[in-house]
Amino acid sequence: MDRRYESLTLVLWMSENDIWDLAIVGGGPAGMAAAIYGARYGLKTILFEAGVLGGAQATSPGIENYPGFTFIVGMDLANKMKEQVKRAGATIKEITEVKGIKKDDSSDLFLLETRRGEFRAHAVIIATGGGHRKLGVDGEKELTGRGVSYCATCDGPLFRGKRVAVVGGGNTAVTEALYLVELAEKVYLIHRRDELRAEHALQKLLFDSEVEVLWDTIVTAIEGDSMVKSLRLKNVKTGEESELEVDGVFIALGSDPVSGLAKELGVETNERGEIIVDRLQRTNVEGVYAAGDVVEGLKQIAVAVGHGAVAADTAYKYIRGRS
Amino acid sequence: MDRRYESLTLVLWMSENDIWDLAIVGGGPAGMAAAIYGARYGLKTILFEAGVLGGAQATSPGIENYPGFTFIVGMDLANKMKEQVKRAGATIKEITEVKGIKKDDSSDLFLLETRRGEFRAHAVIIATGGGHRKLGVDGEKELTGRGVSYCATCDGPLFRGKRVAVVGGGNTAVTEALYLVELAEKVYLIHRRDELRAEHALQKLLFDSEVEVLWDTIVTAIEGDSMVKSLRLKNVKTGEESELEVDGVFIALGSDPVSGLAKELGVETNERGEIIVDRLQRTNVEGVYAAGDVVEGLKQIAVAVGHGAVAADTAYKYIRGRS
Repeated sequence: MDRRYESLTLVLWMSENDIWDLAIVGGGPAGMAAAIYGARYGLKTILFEAGVLGGAQATSPGIENYPGFTFIVGMDLANKMKEQVKRAGATIKEITEVKGIKKDDSSDLFLLETRRGEFRAHAVIIATGGGHRKLGVDGEKELTGRGVSYCATCDGPLFRGKRVAVVGGGNTAVTEALYLVELAEKVYLIHRRDELRAEHALQKLLFDSEVEVLWDTIVTAIEGDSMVKSLRLKNVKTGEESELEVDGVFIALGSDPVSGLAKELGVETNERGEIIVDRLQRTNVEGVYAAGDVVEGLKQIAVAVGHGAVAADTAYKYIRGRS
Repeated sequence: MDRRYESLTLVLWMSENDIWDLAIVGGGPAGMAAAIYGARYGLKTILFEAGVLGGAQATSPGIENYPGFTFIVGMDLANKMKEQVKRAGATIKEITEVKGIKKDDSSDLFLLETRRGEFRAHAVIIATGGGHRKLGVDGEKELTGRGVSYCATCDGPLFRGKRVAVVGGGNTAVTEALYLVELAEKVYLIHRRDELRAEHALQKLLFDSEVEVLWDTIVTAIEGDSMVKSLRLKNVKTGEESELEVDGVFIALGSDPVSGLAKELGVETNERGEIIVDRLQRTNVEGVYAAGDVVEGLKQIAVAVGHGAVAADTAYKYIRGRS
């Protein structure tokens, strides 16, 4: 092996094998806020993200309720936060999934397993967010990426001039329908109840738009060959079944907390799988904190950044107390 | 009385006498976030601020740790949030101190007393922040505005080319010292302990700067006639007394929670006077929520906006449950 390469490898190996003060798992707003605070506190901070930094916010076509921005595209806000994480001096590992976390009782350190090897840290902040909730009907899995989507900003432009449906009744569903109605020929919002959960301001925009709402309706199957062709619908009040021809369907049922890693560590979750924390973002496991959408409570960027800041502050006091 | 004027008065009187869904007391980041969320949820929302909107953040020369802004002047961030509150549709009452809040048991409404009359609301969010903590020494009160200041951004430019001292050891004190060293001839940081509470990143900047830190030192008096001339100092370890000639002194000892109004309502506070809330920002009084620096916990903008969003969400569910 070339000597220069060998020593470079050694340097990389050594830096990877250093002990980190703070390891943060998940690069959405909560994880990025924690990284900004942790690094600014002088903690040796590493942030792992299975994909690219941003989290659920990055897929939003427009955010109007994060204080400081009257309107900002999700990806733009994500990039501003990423720049800030770098500026603060935290180490970022993107496309680096943490596959397992365990406590090493002999060293009293947490071991984080990744495809880049094992990382050791004094404290861990879990900010793994929530995955997209599935509809769970025939055709959904087979036609994902072929007309079935979980992200209107990502895939919306593919449906310009076409007919699409959005399934759901919360803020995300309404936001996505309003985004799609600007470019698609026809947008349906399919909701199983007779009222929406979305906030009032969004509902008003929706009812003033050309989105057609199908109330009391569930999707029982997604049909098509190579691409989505239609949805099978059922009215839950009348029992009537029908077919709706669409080119695409956006499933906007919210998120499921990604708390598997935390559970393996012995972290307590509620019946929805959300991590239970106190006001200092402490879990039941000493040295393990949680922040953002993976935690019980309101799923909002404003809330996630607060969680992240508090989690880093609490972790800082814990780590300082150990040294 | 002119008939047009009379009817205008009547319209104003009626609108003031409407019942508000949500009254927010305090226009810092927590109160503004609550107003954005409350109004977007469709609540009839009113925001009271004794001064002008902004809160403690507005006086910061530069904010680097609010996620989304690598650097922003406090007043600029305050103005962005204010624009967003207006856009969301909340009613803003600036220069309108809430002098008292009581619960009217017959109507089950909260009554808020101001110089503009009494306002009625179903729910109240207390976001009154913290006032500047005083040093409590001779000369402080007499020379306030004559060289004694509690806000470097506000008054710093008056001391261009002069000698100033900053008293304190937290983030605010260090931030103010770093700001002042750019324009003053000489800056001292006077701290009663032998280490700072400020975050590591700020300490590093401080030690790399020309600020001279006087450790283990307290100010025992501020002296001067029409203007500050000197400080009397005492070293707490050696007992040695000395005099330091300065033209100005910035007192940066943090804030005292402004929880008097809340206490009168029967809201519980801790030994520091901070309001005690649960994770939903509920106080012990039904229909009363609290957010931001007046609440126990980390005093940061990122945290305050999360509190505000959660408080508005909890208030929304409470109000909806009543109607």
